[in-house]
Amino acid sequence: MSQPLVGIVMGSASDLPIMQAAAEVLREFGVPYEMRILSAHRTPEATLRYAREAVGRGLEVLIAGAGGAAHLPGVLASVTPLPVIGVPIGTKSLGGVDSLYSIVQMPRGIPVATVAIDGAANAALLAIQILAVRDRELREKLMAYRERLAQEVEAKDQELKDIKY
Amino acid sequence: MSQPLVGIVMGSASDLPIMQAAAEVLREFGVPYEMRILSAHRTPEATLRYAREAVGRGLEVLIAGAGGAAHLPGVLASVTPLPVIGVPIGTKSLGGVDSLYSIVQMPRGIPVATVAIDGAANAALLAIQILAVRDRELREKLMAYRERLAQEVEAKDQELKDIKY
Amino acid sequence: MSQPLVGIVMGSASDLPIMQAAAEVLREFGVPYEMRILSAHRTPEATLRYAREAVGRGLEVLIAGAGGAAHLPGVLASVTPLPVIGVPIGTKSLGGVDSLYSIVQMPRGIPVATVAIDGAANAALLAIQILAVRDRELREKLMAYRERLAQEVEAKDQELKDIKY
Amino acid sequence: MSQPLVGIVMGSASDLPIMQAAAEVLREFGVPYEMRILSAHRTPEATLRYAREAVGRGLEVLIAGAGGAAHLPGVLASVTPLPVIGVPIGTKSLGGVDSLYSIVQMPRGIPVATVAIDGAANAALLAIQILAVRDRELREKLMAYRERLAQEVEAKDQELKDIKY
Amino acid sequence: MSQPLVGIVMGSASDLPIMQAAAEVLREFGVPYEMRILSAHRTPEATLRYAREAVGRGLEVLIAGAGGAAHLPGVLASVTPLPVIGVPIGTKSLGGVDSLYSIVQMPRGIPVATVAIDGAANAALLAIQILAVRDRELREKLMAYRERLAQEVEAKDQELKDIKY
Amino acid sequence: MSQPLVGIVMGSASDLPIMQAAAEVLREFGVPYEMRILSAHRTPEATLRYAREAVGRGLEVLIAGAGGAAHLPGVLASVTPLPVIGVPIGTKSLGGVDSLYSIVQMPRGIPVATVAIDGAANAALLAIQILAVRDRELREKLMAYRERLAQEVEAKDQELKDIKY
Amino acid sequence: MSQPLVGIVMGSASDLPIMQAAAEVLREFGVPYEMRILSAHRTPEATLRYAREAVGRGLEVLIAGAGGAAHLPGVLASVTPLPVIGVPIGTKSLGGVDSLYSIVQMPRGIPVATVAIDGAANAALLAIQILAVRDRELREKLMAYRERLAQEVEAKDQELKDIKY
Amino acid sequence: MSQPLVGIVMGSASDLPIMQAAAEVLREFGVPYEMRILSAHRTPEATLRYAREAVGRGLEVLIAGAGGAAHLPGVLASVTPLPVIGVPIGTKSLGGVDSLYSIVQMPRGIPVATVAIDGAANAALLAIQILAVRDRELREKLMAYRERLAQEVEAKDQELKDIKY
Repeated sequence: MSQPLVGIVMGSASDLPIMQAAAEVLREFGVPYEMRILSAHRTPEATLRYAREAVGRGLEVLIAGAGGAAHLPGVLASVTPLPVIGVPIGTKSLGGVDSLYSIVQMPRGIPVATVAIDGAANAALLAIQILAVRDRELREKLMAYRERLAQEVEAKDQELKDIKY
Repeated sequence: MSQPLVGIVMGSASDLPIMQAAAEVLREFGVPYEMRILSAHRTPEATLRYAREAVGRGLEVLIAGAGGAAHLPGVLASVTPLPVIGVPIGTKSLGGVDSLYSIVQMPRGIPVATVAIDGAANAALLAIQILAVRDRELREKLMAYRERLAQEVEAKDQELKDIKY
Repeated sequence: MSQPLVGIVMGSASDLPIMQAAAEVLREFGVPYEMRILSAHRTPEATLRYAREAVGRGLEVLIAGAGGAAHLPGVLASVTPLPVIGVPIGTKSLGGVDSLYSIVQMPRGIPVATVAIDGAANAALLAIQILAVRDRELREKLMAYRERLAQEVEAKDQELKDIKY
Repeated sequence: MSQPLVGIVMGSASDLPIMQAAAEVLREFGVPYEMRILSAHRTPEATLRYAREAVGRGLEVLIAGAGGAAHLPGVLASVTPLPVIGVPIGTKSLGGVDSLYSIVQMPRGIPVATVAIDGAANAALLAIQILAVRDRELREKLMAYRERLAQEVEAKDQELKDIKY
Repeated sequence: MSQPLVGIVMGSASDLPIMQAAAEVLREFGVPYEMRILSAHRTPEATLRYAREAVGRGLEVLIAGAGGAAHLPGVLASVTPLPVIGVPIGTKSLGGVDSLYSIVQMPRGIPVATVAIDGAANAALLAIQILAVRDRELREKLMAYRERLAQEVEAKDQELKDIKY
Repeated sequence: MSQPLVGIVMGSASDLPIMQAAAEVLREFGVPYEMRILSAHRTPEATLRYAREAVGRGLEVLIAGAGGAAHLPGVLASVTPLPVIGVPIGTKSLGGVDSLYSIVQMPRGIPVATVAIDGAANAALLAIQILAVRDRELREKLMAYRERLAQEVEAKDQELKDIKY
Repeated sequence: MSQPLVGIVMGSASDLPIMQAAAEVLREFGVPYEMRILSAHRTPEATLRYAREAVGRGLEVLIAGAGGAAHLPGVLASVTPLPVIGVPIGTKSLGGVDSLYSIVQMPRGIPVATVAIDGAANAALLAIQILAVRDRELREKLMAYRERLAQEVEAKDQELKDIKY
Repeated sequence: MSQPLVGIVMGSASDLPIMQAAAEVLREFGVPYEMRILSAHRTPEATLRYAREAVGRGLEVLIAGAGGAAHLPGVLASVTPLPVIGVPIGTKSLGGVDSLYSIVQMPRGIPVATVAIDGAANAALLAIQILAVRDRELREKLMAYRERLAQEVEAKDQELKDIKY
């Protein structure tokens, strides 16, 4: 794979089943990415180093998934000027509202672009929208992707009409 | 002002006191923007037309603020490939958790980059981070802005030390 | 089936297991309906066209089910004068409180008649109550339906008394 | 005023500042209404009598506002086949989420058409949409009303453009 | 069984698995009770008749379980001077917080004595505490019951100590 | 005042403005009471002593108001067989939902009869309903009280009709 | 085992599957502990006695797990000067938010050190951090433990890199 | 003041009105402390440096107050073995439930000892309880402090009795 443009980071290997949806979307769009397990709390130094070196390594967008007191996206955002997309991971006790609040309610100065709970695929699409600001071909691909989404809905709609529910 | 790159949209004139913080940040960074009042529910046609023409008019990012059943960011996102940043406006009865859920919980395929409740300044900073993907000068300005933020915190810290609370 | 009076719309085929309860109630009352899959976000044009043409096509009430950032009922309501009934679909992470807030908290001017989370059967009964405003026979049927509901409760009550729990 | 078609009911005189918005909208549309204070808990007999006699008295829609354990809309709905619109009144301690849940989460069989917290104006508009099922003139008025809403938004939008914020 | 002193009422047969815990506790204490299925919304007349006749029939306390827009306890309380104990039944979508708010947030004048979500056994114990106001023997039994509860906890505690976890 | 039958307890003098409504209702009904400030956390010994001696001192019902981690009602209930009525006091940060959960969610074995947030008047009415189990005169007074409540509502209703809003 | 320094207390044997994680961590660090089942509501005397004697028996920290109206940590804290760590146990109906509020929202004067819902392992780590204030060796062990945590994350990270997801 | 044992840290000067209560309590107990403004997001390097050097500088406990996506306590905890006490600061939109979740829901391995929303005084008392593990004199002072708290409650109780409310 060529030079990664998007870094997908998660706090724990247990987040992989959710976060891999981001990787799948990026692969589908041909956007090179890398995937890392870095914990804001258990490996803070490695996490900060990763974020600090991200610009120099040619990354353009970071995607970070975390659950509970989900500090990873905010910690990354505090040491990089790159846009950071946060994916709140659903939690057993609170359904993910803890993750959502921990990610979205950032203070003035350091935003995190937050998507839906467990919304890793949308995080990737948002990364692609961001990259499309300089890569018009990606914008074309996005339009085509949406066209396919629409066609899927229309096919389901036709199916429902056909069976005359 | 030259060709706007960012469109700041809000559903009602009553959102202006919150949303103007986005304009102020963009002005500070020298990023040309435009500001519009467009309601997903009361002027749906004008809203959709605006979003559909955004790419052609040279806009690169949309920022949309809305409260309650806050559909504006999602409605814009459904008809433009541009990244859309959603600002949940605080509400009297539910504090803005209704606005937050209505904006962040978008379905697979159509993301909205959500910031904190009433977080219009951060929406502008996120727009700048996105534009910086192709405009390196903006990244420099972002680093300088953060430096100033840090200095403000440090000044307050020093003040507190000096008075030996 | 004759000219449909009620349009049952949902954002995704995955909502069908919930929304079919609406179809069943309407069938039981002999009210002609149609069922469509239309996504506010993935097929916005088709969705808007459907709502705009609803009056002309002789529809009298729309029922719309959606989950998460549930914009479908509000989007329909914004372009039709017909009453729109919203069914918040339960969600895995937030139980459906996100869907409920996104549907019920509509701004002044554009109401959505919201029923309980996953309450598709009640949406159909509400549609029937609305149609009964001009069709007195439906009102009779409603009274009979309620009588049956009451008898079911009474039968269960008698059963409990008989076993002398 | 001629024979009322809409009954606006509230549980306490303290709900009047919220509920009068419903009366104002109906008056604007020329829809005859009546306004009553009836408490599901403090005057249960009068409340039930009112609902039971509503059809016979020529009413077509009931609007009921209540706060806290807001049983009024559901109690009315249990003894009349008329559509009942519920307005959850905001509460000091819980913001109105208690009123909302008490009104919207009705069991299968007895729907209440719920609008936003403190959404009395929208309750009236929904009543008008319901009456328009048999009175086409009302539908015209609704379209004109929306046109005015849209013009208000457009005027504000123009104002904002003019001052070149 | 002799003249029932406690009426256990529930809105639906589906509440029986929860509510039977109340019956079991009353039986254990030798307090005569009756169990009824009465729906505030589907059999309002029978429900009101039951509550109105409760005093005359010699009942002293009512226990009512209901879920969602849980109006049953409040509706009973509105037409009887007897103390009414409300049991919020857990719900699939909202966990029972809807039932809790609908029961506990009663307006000034008409209280409902609310216990924990699905807390039917405690409702029965509360009924016994109330009856003990005039029946001292019940108070003795309550003390003995608590003694047994304490012994169960102590036995578990001893077990844990013995295995020297 | 003669031998108190009801003990009104609160955790802090700051709860007095809410809790005095309970005293006022009891005085209106001629039910002797006493009022105490006892903190489950700051004066645990005095609190427990009070609850343990309550039966011996002739008290029949305890009313306890507390806010936040509101343990007072549950702590009293754990050492007395008397019925304990809990009043959740509204809190600045969480509106009183913390107080409500801390009071109502008691474990099997030790119920607390919970009323609405800040519902001290209803706590007193519930205490009166409990005392009426052995004092029929109180039941008469309750009926008269409710009659007055109904008349107040009816007077307001008449007033509204008269002004032909 | 030598003189226990940490007392792990839970309100019910059903909390053991959660609370044993605390015991496992303490054993791993070689910190002597004891485990008890003591209920704030069902065995209040034994619970208070335990807390009052804790200092005299040489305990230095208490860890208390409880669910629902979770009073155990606060009750212990009210009669001992030792630091008390509270573990909110997840609940079926409310996910543990009831337990969390009941534990964390303690009034001024009597703190409880609250950890995450079901966070018994972290309660033990916090106890160790507290003991390390006087036992520097424990601090070394903590550093080593964290090193192992970091290595586990790094191993997972390496694994992910190796499979070049 | 001699060598500080407790570091009180807050993310913004606007938190000072809440956090100074911690300083007041520590001063009252004669525990040397220092107060710093350090932002997890705006001055991440200074924040981390502070936490990393804390042990070497002789600090024994850290108290950190933060609001919204309140990462400060967790970020400090991730790089120091000292016990970190988190104070969730109340927020305008969500009342502080966002701050609470962001602080208390820490992952396994890195606990934060969380106190009530705006509970800075209790944070200080908890710090004192922790220091008392090695400083028995502090334990004596704590007992005396509690005695004073109890006397205050008792004085208020006596006052209430005297006025025979």
